[in-house]
Amino acid sequence: MKAGHISVIGLGPGNAGQVTPEANAAVAAAKWFYGYGPYVDRLDLRFDQIKVASDNREEISRAQAALEKAAQGERVAVVSGGDPGVFAMAAAVCEAIEAGPAEWRDIELTVVPGITAMLAVAARIGAPLGHDFCAISLSDNLKPWDIIEKRLQAAASAGFVIALYNPISKARPWQLGKAFELLRTILPETTPIIFGRAAGRPDEKMVVTPLGAADAGQADMATCVIIGSAETRIIDRGALPALVYTPRFLNAAQGANS
Amino acid sequence: MKAGHISVIGLGPGNAGQVTPEANAAVAAAKWFYGYGPYVDRLDLRFDQIKVASDNREEISRAQAALEKAAQGERVAVVSGGDPGVFAMAAAVCEAIEAGPAEWRDIELTVVPGITAMLAVAARIGAPLGHDFCAISLSDNLKPWDIIEKRLQAAASAGFVIALYNPISKARPWQLGKAFELLRTILPETTPIIFGRAAGRPDEKMVVTPLGAADAGQADMATCVIIGSAETRIIDRGALPALVYTPRFLNAAQGANS
Repeated sequence: MKAGHISVIGLGPGNAGQVTPEANAAVAAAKWFYGYGPYVDRLDLRFDQIKVASDNREEISRAQAALEKAAQGERVAVVSGGDPGVFAMAAAVCEAIEAGPAEWRDIELTVVPGITAMLAVAARIGAPLGHDFCAISLSDNLKPWDIIEKRLQAAASAGFVIALYNPISKARPWQLGKAFELLRTILPETTPIIFGRAAGRPDEKMVVTPLGAADAGQADMATCVIIGSAETRIIDRGALPALVYTPRFLNAAQGANS
Repeated sequence: MKAGHISVIGLGPGNAGQVTPEANAAVAAAKWFYGYGPYVDRLDLRFDQIKVASDNREEISRAQAALEKAAQGERVAVVSGGDPGVFAMAAAVCEAIEAGPAEWRDIELTVVPGITAMLAVAARIGAPLGHDFCAISLSDNLKPWDIIEKRLQAAASAGFVIALYNPISKARPWQLGKAFELLRTILPETTPIIFGRAAGRPDEKMVVTPLGAADAGQADMATCVIIGSAETRIIDRGALPALVYTPRFLNAAQGANS
């Protein structure tokens, strides 16, 4: 039997203006659509295209179901919000391929990148990711909490700006507060913290607060939290919203413009 | 005088399929276009739109020129490849605003995110950024080399995948080789290294090599280098290109699927 094709498609933050033409073309070319319900619901499909929505917590079984369908010779899409390669379905599909039957390795795989949350949030607020930065998932469902603490410690101590994905959920209520506690032992109290909720969507909300006053209750599942570094600056603009940015240069190299 | 408007626009990796509709709309709405020559040259402008190309090494003076023009009440665009907030013009524009005349703070600023190089490269090869990762500019024009070494050390030791921007240039020939040397003291020789050149463009070239054999000569200015972590895996697929990915889970949390 001919192996099919699977596209793992990034739909961006959630508005049509931030979906790439490549993503739209990949949607148009597929017949079967697998994804977390709210992402699948964003798709405006033809009558011959079929949605298979699943729950948030079923990434591997969703990837397996999509691969099984593709192995039947079908054209299958797996959709993610943001970018599918950042804490999302592209890795789950790869995991399923590696652990699955040999014929799954014959399925053509295309990953279509998208605007990931931290880029959308950063754009709304200035340029907080303007210099070295990292992205950490705060979910301890997939790694032990002590590893998360170690990474927060290493990143903040070395001067990285930190974007936190999956900061909080009903099942993980305390982790973000604990992260702020840890970061307060490393970074100045005045370090800007950005709570970037639903960037680019109608319910968008951007809040900037100093680390000393950051409260985990300001975040929800739709929030990407960006932790500044000691270099991150705020430009007050009076009537216009303040800009938060991290300069391109550092210390001794200041002024050496290139 | 009425303050103008400045858009800092991300044009993505370099093919039209990866430019968002939002970026195209921002281009259509501007009159003056400032940017590094090759990025400005990507624009297909109307006869009433004006290009002001400048050299790669003039980010601050370019930002200042664009802000001066906007302060005259004009609609100005500053264009970047990739995402403008990642080692690009959004931070330079913020720096210029902070250091510039007070009236520049009245200029409306919009940042339009784009697909940044590491996402485009990752998508072509699997999901190497599937778990915690960081982005480091290897240019020591803007920060001292010892800070770069400290960040490489911290990130690799803490298990982050690392995307290196600005890995090499004529003026900075030795830095990438030195980075590989340092990383070999921390990571296994078998760690996958991805040399992702010109992702999504006609001259795209993706090379995967073990850290033990990584050679800085495989990179050029158009390359984003991704350094795997100890968790990063390669799936051999026979006739199809190998997939490189970093699993979503780690150690003790394995199997706890969420």
